[in-house]
Amino acid sequence: MTASIDDLPTPAVLVDLDVVERNLARMQERTRRAGVKLRPHAKTHKSPEIGRMQLAAGASGLTLAKTSEAEVFADLGFDDIFLGYPIVGADKGRRLLALADRIRLAVGVDSVEGARTLGAVFHAAGRRLSVLLKVDCGFHRVGVAPEDAVALALRIAQEPGLTLSGVFTHGGQGYGGRTSDEVARIGREESRIVSETADALRAAGLPVGEVSLGSTPTAGAAMTGHGVTECRPGTYIYNDGSQVALGSCGPEDCAMTILATVVSVPAADRAVVDAGTKTLSSDPLRPVADGLGLVVGRRTRVARASEEHGVLAVAPGETFRVGDRVRILPNHTCAVSNLHGALAAVRGGRVEGRITVAARGCVQ
Amino acid sequence: MTASIDDLPTPAVLVDLDVVERNLARMQERTRRAGVKLRPHAKTHKSPEIGRMQLAAGASGLTLAKTSEAEVFADLGFDDIFLGYPIVGADKGRRLLALADRIRLAVGVDSVEGARTLGAVFHAAGRRLSVLLKVDCGFHRVGVAPEDAVALALRIAQEPGLTLSGVFTHGGQGYGGRTSDEVARIGREESRIVSETADALRAAGLPVGEVSLGSTPTAGAAMTGHGVTECRPGTYIYNDGSQVALGSCGPEDCAMTILATVVSVPAADRAVVDAGTKTLSSDPLRPVADGLGLVVGRRTRVARASEEHGVLAVAPGETFRVGDRVRILPNHTCAVSNLHGALAAVRGGRVEGRITVAARGCVQ
Repeated sequence: MTASIDDLPTPAVLVDLDVVERNLARMQERTRRAGVKLRPHAKTHKSPEIGRMQLAAGASGLTLAKTSEAEVFADLGFDDIFLGYPIVGADKGRRLLALADRIRLAVGVDSVEGARTLGAVFHAAGRRLSVLLKVDCGFHRVGVAPEDAVALALRIAQEPGLTLSGVFTHGGQGYGGRTSDEVARIGREESRIVSETADALRAAGLPVGEVSLGSTPTAGAAMTGHGVTECRPGTYIYNDGSQVALGSCGPEDCAMTILATVVSVPAADRAVVDAGTKTLSSDPLRPVADGLGLVVGRRTRVARASEEHGVLAVAPGETFRVGDRVRILPNHTCAVSNLHGALAAVRGGRVEGRITVAARGCVQ
Repeated sequence: MTASIDDLPTPAVLVDLDVVERNLARMQERTRRAGVKLRPHAKTHKSPEIGRMQLAAGASGLTLAKTSEAEVFADLGFDDIFLGYPIVGADKGRRLLALADRIRLAVGVDSVEGARTLGAVFHAAGRRLSVLLKVDCGFHRVGVAPEDAVALALRIAQEPGLTLSGVFTHGGQGYGGRTSDEVARIGREESRIVSETADALRAAGLPVGEVSLGSTPTAGAAMTGHGVTECRPGTYIYNDGSQVALGSCGPEDCAMTILATVVSVPAADRAVVDAGTKTLSSDPLRPVADGLGLVVGRRTRVARASEEHGVLAVAPGETFRVGDRVRILPNHTCAVSNLHGALAAVRGGRVEGRITVAARGCVQ
């Protein structure tokens, strides 16, 4: 069955498969040339259909954050998952133990306390969990400071039940870069810090396998660095307004748009669509235009929104009428995916199928 | 079955039933004294369990926004729903027609075009849909300007298939009030504008039944105005950081908190919890503290967040350790509900049951 997108009830999230296939091939080729593995962060799509496309194109496995996400993907047949997140707690440890029976699993750690709770569970079961040490390359979110990495790694390596198998980082500060050059500089710094940390661990006698990094904006500059083995971008598969703002891609590389209907035109400079923060998300990330999204092919933007209302600041010379359908480029595609159970997979103006957001809302 | 909240996996959304019951009784009593009906906006909870509590306490019906939300609630046995939203489109009209077979239904209109698409569907079926005219009382989102209301109402009243049965407004600009006095002034203005519009329609020969208004911050001042028949607050049932910031309630009136675990303490002034924007939402609404939430009983706040990380700006003198559990007061409870399939209903430190977010993600 294919239907016209004109027949879809609104609001609806559309994903253009032609664009997805281009984005997929391009990132796979970049990692191939750089000689690193691509382990995409599946938080962007949370979907088995897209995850299978990534693996079929050559991805080495998937990255996720939370234990419940790994459980959903393992149930769907995905058998190689890295949780790039400092998992903490014996209850999570027991769930990871069950997962490790079924799939190849590794998780992040950045503290002795966190590592110990997981290690104790695995040790009691006579098993070992593969962990990667998270290093802070300047994002200042989680991760050990590079200067403290060796001391922490030596302690974690001694925990029974754990195998320290590498280091990883994430240059999330790239989202604050003002120019493409600055984003690239951040990517090179990301790369330098994680590989120097890997070298320091090796010098301290610790074997380091994986040296993993990456985000969509920094991936290009970061993955070519010395000693890098793996890159973990997520957003590249759909792209969004934030990536356009950062110069990571052009508008034509954005696969996801929101199909919405104009429901009210109370003034010449204001129109309201039926897509608000429950559809577009209220996550600005790095807005392409001031506000929550950009009307495709127009200069009009979603200036503000409440849960079910997207308020368009109508650009001079543009006109919207009640009943018009528009497509909106969202700021942050990962946040949009999480709001919906299914997205419409489209090609041209036709609906080809659905993309299931199977791991939607898996926060635990 | 009851369990300790200490046994819940994190992050988890907790709703304290003692607080819910107090909030419920208080708003019901305020509307009773004002002599108006209470028709709570169920967007806050999206839940049959809470909706039934509201009806049992005396609510006249529920308010929702989208057609799909009404379908979910009708399926759950709710038989009196007002969609306070300008529903547009023949496809939505057909769904409303099916709903009107099952429940007492009214919807908002604010344009001839929007009204006509719905009216045509009902007229073709030999039916009439009850509509209320949305009036803009200064929020400048949707709604007809008061000075244009009579002309629009006369045209809508002539549409076959429709019965214009009242007027409604929403003083959402109350969320921008700087003081409680200013919020109350906005509430009085909301009340004045909608009742003057009702009087003007009556003077033009149109019967006006419902005169409906309200939001949690403006409800108290607005519902006592001349000629008001109905009040539609939503957030009061749970309350949140925004309501505390606005002076609508105290912290002790907030029923919803997020239970989270500290997963990383990378620096003395920074700790990271496992609740990010996928749990807390990134909707600031009217933040109680700069950021995305406040740690209950502390001065520390969630200064920033990404999807799975809530970054605490640790207040001087406060300490967090990896593995600590904290409770966070979110900024906007409606946005949090929409992110989760179920919330934990608690009383004291015990889990008493679950609150199903049955209409989660119903945006169409």
